[in-house]
Amino acid sequence: MDFPRPVSRRLFIGGAAATAGILTLTPSELALWAQGPQNGQGQAGAQGQGARRTTSEAEYDSYAKLSSNENCYGPPESVIQAMTRAMKYANRYGYPDGNITQEIADHHGVKTENILLGAGSGELLDVVGLTFLDSPSKKVVGSDPSYGSVYQQATTIKADAIKVPLLGDYRQDIAGLIKSTKTHYRDVGFVYLCNPNNPTGQIVTKKEMKHLLNELPEDMPVLIDEAYHHFVDDDDYATSVPYVLEGRPVIIARTFSKIAALAGMRLGYVVAPRELIVKMRAHQTGTINALVKWGGVAALKDTASQAQVKKVTVDLRKKVVRDLKQLGYESIPSEGTFFMVHIKRPVQPVIEEFRKRTVLVGRPFPPMLEHLRVSVGTPDEMARFTGAFKEIFTGPNAVGGKSGS
Amino acid sequence: MDFPRPVSRRLFIGGAAATAGILTLTPSELALWAQGPQNGQGQAGAQGQGARRTTSEAEYDSYAKLSSNENCYGPPESVIQAMTRAMKYANRYGYPDGNITQEIADHHGVKTENILLGAGSGELLDVVGLTFLDSPSKKVVGSDPSYGSVYQQATTIKADAIKVPLLGDYRQDIAGLIKSTKTHYRDVGFVYLCNPNNPTGQIVTKKEMKHLLNELPEDMPVLIDEAYHHFVDDDDYATSVPYVLEGRPVIIARTFSKIAALAGMRLGYVVAPRELIVKMRAHQTGTINALVKWGGVAALKDTASQAQVKKVTVDLRKKVVRDLKQLGYESIPSEGTFFMVHIKRPVQPVIEEFRKRTVLVGRPFPPMLEHLRVSVGTPDEMARFTGAFKEIFTGPNAVGGKSGS
Repeated sequence: MDFPRPVSRRLFIGGAAATAGILTLTPSELALWAQGPQNGQGQAGAQGQGARRTTSEAEYDSYAKLSSNENCYGPPESVIQAMTRAMKYANRYGYPDGNITQEIADHHGVKTENILLGAGSGELLDVVGLTFLDSPSKKVVGSDPSYGSVYQQATTIKADAIKVPLLGDYRQDIAGLIKSTKTHYRDVGFVYLCNPNNPTGQIVTKKEMKHLLNELPEDMPVLIDEAYHHFVDDDDYATSVPYVLEGRPVIIARTFSKIAALAGMRLGYVVAPRELIVKMRAHQTGTINALVKWGGVAALKDTASQAQVKKVTVDLRKKVVRDLKQLGYESIPSEGTFFMVHIKRPVQPVIEEFRKRTVLVGRPFPPMLEHLRVSVGTPDEMARFTGAFKEIFTGPNAVGGKSGS
Repeated sequence: MDFPRPVSRRLFIGGAAATAGILTLTPSELALWAQGPQNGQGQAGAQGQGARRTTSEAEYDSYAKLSSNENCYGPPESVIQAMTRAMKYANRYGYPDGNITQEIADHHGVKTENILLGAGSGELLDVVGLTFLDSPSKKVVGSDPSYGSVYQQATTIKADAIKVPLLGDYRQDIAGLIKSTKTHYRDVGFVYLCNPNNPTGQIVTKKEMKHLLNELPEDMPVLIDEAYHHFVDDDDYATSVPYVLEGRPVIIARTFSKIAALAGMRLGYVVAPRELIVKMRAHQTGTINALVKWGGVAALKDTASQAQVKKVTVDLRKKVVRDLKQLGYESIPSEGTFFMVHIKRPVQPVIEEFRKRTVLVGRPFPPMLEHLRVSVGTPDEMARFTGAFKEIFTGPNAVGGKSGS
């Protein structure tokens, strides 16, 4: 089978060069890599032991990459140019940085003391864990499933998580989060909320958020991860940044990985009250590279590109969800750059079937083991996905079986 | 005064573009920036409060930058090309990474389990602090002065430092480091040694290192910072990486900021026994960007460029030291990319005099407050330095006075 390669029309630098670079992975690492690194490192290939498998850049390029909620279009030209120009600071420590922190603060109408930059929002999620789960008895309260990084970090530092199941319609259980937090108040280091949630794509409404924050103990830090903020259309959603201005102990995480397509360049930030920023800073070890500081400034200003990426992504998500519905498969309503389709059978073998067809789709998200998370890629990638879906589920050679069979 | 601007013949991308970017600094931040960030962040401009000063990129470009031990030549063409090509991964989490960790492990003849990448070696110094100064009673033992980042990190996390003064000839006091560590054994989290030392440029010899490691308690972690390793000519010096292979609890820090000129791109690593790497990893929050992974691989392989940078830097260091000696000012013998000249008067006003002449030189390194640290820049920058030195110290309008006057 010879799929056409996805080509980003906007990645004009180096994108087409055939290369000899090698990626060395164990099979389990390949699986992890295919599903997107949970630790945000992108270094899975480099750290394993044991038997290895070598994957060339050409093999990497051959996949439709619908597994990691990446922005398939790459950074807009304005951002690539800003980063290329900043290459002149590659050898410097101190240098004009485009005033990135001030630009972000201005963007949100807060002070620079309310901003902490990170190497992606992933670093800052880790920093929040290290800061507020500061003893083994401390726990994070959050939904299950949600973005797993926070829970994995808790495990790494030998803290624990209280996971509140989603409701029957896969929305987050606000009453459950409040109750769990209150019940375990003394042991809860912070509450985590991903909005819209990953992997479901569902939002927590303005009203729900207000209720949650009003009901939680006043001094309880709440980490609100708005990685997919820019893609939401639902009027019932709003950013929670204004709660920072109210002085509430909320920490809003944002990333340049999604709307700005800078996942590989590592830039994110949190907006939070000064006293929380000060606490967090002591636990942060990462630093930001010169290029992405300038790239970030350019991205903030390129609102036209943002609008375009949002439109093509959301339109395509809706189209594919409709296509799958016509095939008899319902998806959870999503406001993100991805969606979850109910495949009515165990997901793990299906993931493997897609991979055989050079389509990488999301990993399993227990306990939702009959749902498949699909990132929205390019039109070409989505056509490959739909084609593979038909082969796997409805074609004459459909593989696998119904759940329980 | 209209100094010619230093031009890096190797930075062919964007280096000459006139730009409108702005760097906003408070006066104290400007001083910090001029002296090079001690936290490796390069973000000083973005986080301050209070009165601000705006510095344009043009003003930044106008300085001879001899304050931060940067590699003034910028990355070699091979590295720039590798990073530019890797721009195609700017939007990705998982991607072929040039096998950077394996390449580094191979370079040292160790396993990948012995390597931990960091956002510059500065991140890893912080990680060592967070890992081994894990209670407020824990202390780091090291020389004074040395690279201050480790001591500052100790302060940040409310740990302490036992600083052993340099000997009369400014060499590190190995016997003193051993004695202090043994005396405070239960409280010492790790021993720090910068080799060659920053700011003096002096080495710890192979023999001294062997003595130190033999005399220290067997389980005492020793962090050996070899940031300037590639510039050493002295045959009595050797890397301490082989001690890792012996299974000793040593942590060797290396950086791509110096010989590879990638300070702004943030890549360093440690070589250490697996069990120390595992402990450290839990405290690391930073991640590495896609570009510098490929840039790092290219840099490791471009040994011709390394040899060239070493030669021009060392030759120029020797020349300027000779010139200053002819003016009556002795320097401490250095094996680094910088040297300390004994200026026989308080250093702070002299730093300011250089700044007035658009030459940025090193910050004060107490208690050596009559020594000036000068990074070796381009021939043009060093001519500007020497010219300014003559004006300040020997010309008809020589400013300041002798110590004590």
